[in-house]
Amino acid sequence: MKTPARDGFRMPAEWERHAGTWMLWPERHDNWREGAAPAQRAFTEVASAIAQSEPVTMAVSAQQFEAARRALASAVRVVEMSSNDAWMRDVGPTFVVNARGERRGVDWIFNSWGGLTGGIYSPWDLDDQVAAKVLEIERCARYRAPFVLEGGAIHVDGKGTLLTTEECLLNPNRNPDLRRGQIESLLEDHLGVRKIIWLGRGVYNDETDGHVDNLCCFVRPGEVALTWCDDRSDPQYEISHEAYEVLRSARDVRGKLLKVHKLQQPGPLYMTESEAAGIEAAPGCKPRRAGERLAASYVNFYIANLAIVMPLLDARTDGRAKAALSRLFPGRKVIGVPSREILLGGGNIHCITQQVPK
Amino acid sequence: MKTPARDGFRMPAEWERHAGTWMLWPERHDNWREGAAPAQRAFTEVASAIAQSEPVTMAVSAQQFEAARRALASAVRVVEMSSNDAWMRDVGPTFVVNARGERRGVDWIFNSWGGLTGGIYSPWDLDDQVAAKVLEIERCARYRAPFVLEGGAIHVDGKGTLLTTEECLLNPNRNPDLRRGQIESLLEDHLGVRKIIWLGRGVYNDETDGHVDNLCCFVRPGEVALTWCDDRSDPQYEISHEAYEVLRSARDVRGKLLKVHKLQQPGPLYMTESEAAGIEAAPGCKPRRAGERLAASYVNFYIANLAIVMPLLDARTDGRAKAALSRLFPGRKVIGVPSREILLGGGNIHCITQQVPK
Repeated sequence: MKTPARDGFRMPAEWERHAGTWMLWPERHDNWREGAAPAQRAFTEVASAIAQSEPVTMAVSAQQFEAARRALASAVRVVEMSSNDAWMRDVGPTFVVNARGERRGVDWIFNSWGGLTGGIYSPWDLDDQVAAKVLEIERCARYRAPFVLEGGAIHVDGKGTLLTTEECLLNPNRNPDLRRGQIESLLEDHLGVRKIIWLGRGVYNDETDGHVDNLCCFVRPGEVALTWCDDRSDPQYEISHEAYEVLRSARDVRGKLLKVHKLQQPGPLYMTESEAAGIEAAPGCKPRRAGERLAASYVNFYIANLAIVMPLLDARTDGRAKAALSRLFPGRKVIGVPSREILLGGGNIHCITQQVPK
Repeated sequence: MKTPARDGFRMPAEWERHAGTWMLWPERHDNWREGAAPAQRAFTEVASAIAQSEPVTMAVSAQQFEAARRALASAVRVVEMSSNDAWMRDVGPTFVVNARGERRGVDWIFNSWGGLTGGIYSPWDLDDQVAAKVLEIERCARYRAPFVLEGGAIHVDGKGTLLTTEECLLNPNRNPDLRRGQIESLLEDHLGVRKIIWLGRGVYNDETDGHVDNLCCFVRPGEVALTWCDDRSDPQYEISHEAYEVLRSARDVRGKLLKVHKLQQPGPLYMTESEAAGIEAAPGCKPRRAGERLAASYVNFYIANLAIVMPLLDARTDGRAKAALSRLFPGRKVIGVPSREILLGGGNIHCITQQVPK
């Protein structure tokens, strides 16, 4: 095995047929409030929504195994797996396929979104083993990539175009010794892409250093959804408008201009006093404080085989977002899941899922 | 789901086609000498021998995951799973199949071979979860049996006959409230058998309370192999001769008399001073002492798709046992694996494996 691209493998788009979805069970009390119970309920609901489309596997620590098995729908497979938190998008493998339908996985180096210079928690050794453990269970060959990346930092159209952000991939807390051109080559080698579109900054106050999966995603080849803000006084305004300008003049791998769909953001939303009070702050984990702006975005949805599983975040804006997604994905049922508890932990539905292509 | 038998399921014979084999990785220092390193080498060799026939999965604790992955052949799948020790035969599920080729699993209650009255270690809570965890990964429906049993306490011919021992199944430290007839009904319900042959005692000084899989097994319908001893001064003499008398007059489910093949035992073998010194005795685990008679038997082999994986225990007797097994299984290659290290821990190759029927 050389690299996925040289071996004839490519990362499929999320809307291509899945064999299933992997998730991780939240439990750390220093990130999830009230002993993680409300987050566990939200993850359970996400798993049930996806399980209507395809098999779901929840990876759970030994300590939480029985509780998770009781809580989750019987259709959800529960397997024991240690981790440092619950972000399967970022710690899980990125699956690649070849023309013969063979499936392999890329295991990126994980450093907790920035290691000791801006990372979110320490240690992260168990998280860094998750991709390998998933690939063992899936009986998939593994490519260990020689650089730091999280699955949420990239989106692809399945045709050879990749979307990412400079804020994350060029951040010195990821791969300080790699320049833009080297990172592009590595992405091409590992994902089978040939065209990379660089956006600038990710969603305002996103602690992942601007993961693209909270900002902008492909909805089909040639079309993207972008989180949007019309309020000039909101710091998200400039971020979304800058991204829009890049996208308007960007061309995909086929040389075509992109169509950009704006998804009005919820909120702005902030962590409340009582929410912050439920978190047991501990050394080695980024503190969460009342009043902090939450990086809320409707772009952070998941494309399952038969459904779009989208975050419900704000009663004033959820309906419009749901209608927009229904128009963007006419073949799929849009299922909204209340996901403020996931947002409070630092991400959303896309961040806690990882598809296994068929 | 009612019971396997009522739902049309039966336990296949071990020689029926396998989809794979499960094992558990040894690591406890109070049972395996020298930090379990020699045992890990023996388990690794067993896994490699079986992997020549069929896919092998090794379940390993989080702590040992990377070490096991490095040690084991790449063909062996390694999955994280907590356990109290390494006896997959006894703590794993017993798989049952129906006529349509569907596969389910029976999850027996496990009490460490006798609980607090003669059991081997405490606690055993993680062991009791292993069957459920294996069945989750295999995506098999699970029957939780309402009584204590270990997989090593039974053998079947796949046609409806079951072989077991009174010493184990009627032991008050297993199911004190169940009488022989009730146990027979439960075995029939859970394994799809209709005829039970009761032997008396298991191998001398076998700490499992006489598991049949160390004493006697089917080699095909109508034929069994029995561990044998011609030395009247050896306590095994009487045990083997008693079993022989029972077997000579027993009839299987088809009403046929059995053919009994005698397998001369190795040794007798005893734990040496240096072997005992390498074990870090600890509270909650049965102590192992120099001079103890080891329950060594060549019957404790495993039938893989293409091979018999047999224990090598004594240079004076290994060759004869290997020749005998070659005659008994003409379609399979007999692979001997040095297994004294497994024997020192209290079992042998059959005890550390569990087949998944195809």
